[in-house]
Amino acid sequence: QGVEIISSEKLAALCSVNPAQIRKDLAYFGEFGVRGVGYYVKDLLFEIRKILGLNKEWNLGIVGTGNLGTALIGHENFLKQGYRFVAAFDNDPTKFARALPNGLKVYDIKEVKRIKDEVGMEIGVITTPASRAQEVANRLVEAGIRGILNFAPVRIHVPANCEVEYVDFTIRLDSLTYRLSVED
Amino acid sequence: QGVEIISSEKLAALCSVNPAQIRKDLAYFGEFGVRGVGYYVKDLLFEIRKILGLNKEWNLGIVGTGNLGTALIGHENFLKQGYRFVAAFDNDPTKFARALPNGLKVYDIKEVKRIKDEVGMEIGVITTPASRAQEVANRLVEAGIRGILNFAPVRIHVPANCEVEYVDFTIRLDSLTYRLSVED
Repeated sequence: QGVEIISSEKLAALCSVNPAQIRKDLAYFGEFGVRGVGYYVKDLLFEIRKILGLNKEWNLGIVGTGNLGTALIGHENFLKQGYRFVAAFDNDPTKFARALPNGLKVYDIKEVKRIKDEVGMEIGVITTPASRAQEVANRLVEAGIRGILNFAPVRIHVPANCEVEYVDFTIRLDSLTYRLSVED
Repeated sequence: QGVEIISSEKLAALCSVNPAQIRKDLAYFGEFGVRGVGYYVKDLLFEIRKILGLNKEWNLGIVGTGNLGTALIGHENFLKQGYRFVAAFDNDPTKFARALPNGLKVYDIKEVKRIKDEVGMEIGVITTPASRAQEVANRLVEAGIRGILNFAPVRIHVPANCEVEYVDFTIRLDSLTYRLSVED
């Protein structure tokens, strides 16, 4: 947001914790702050990303180029946080010619192994319907992908050397409505 | 998936826990299973939704009808889980005439109070760019909305009588890449 320096008080308010905890937690990893001044946002971000092992760019390939896939490719936060879409796949030939944000081309999912090696794709993002997700996961694993972010509303099964994370929209809604119900 | 009866062993395998824990946890709430047979999936689902307070339909209004908003409205899991989109809003007049999935019309966000009362909207789903999210949240709160699901990549501030849940795609990617980095 254009802020260059931030105090632990400001950070604490933003995170709803107390300022002393912020200072203590950060001090554990080194001397990031300037006494009486605060933290340089740019440096702090760099240090936190290093602590979390996030100081690396990752190349993503998306499978499923419907509305959700297209939304993700154009999503403002990915690139800012070091995630770059380098390939897109679909199984519908009518989609192969479509232009996606960032000039991405849509490839046939059958070509995932070849394209993955060509563009250095490291993570597969599944945005297909639930009914296709396992088949897509199998193809990604076969192509040598070791990390999958799955948006399809279904569990997928992969070998132990592959990691899967799920994004489930309805779980967050369940959590929200549970809190609303409890209050009533 | 068309399964009518499921054993605690099957459930346990799907959840990666042990069968005895499944039986014990469910038995805590009542006698849902049939000894030697398993659980009737339909009944079990009904009971679990009741336990979690999810046996109610909720009416959602979406604000932001770009790719992400459109993807959510058409998302296969919402309706199945009791979440129904009853209204859609945007601030871009060129979008007001657009046809959305399920025959939804797009209204001007300025009309949110009137439409909310008309269609019984209970939850606001924000899929605008980050720069518009707070303004939209203010409008939702003014209209009397007490629950917000925010997809915009920014914290929003609301009064204490309003609940907010966030869906953050990059957090799940961070978690995935952290696990990949640790293994290396």
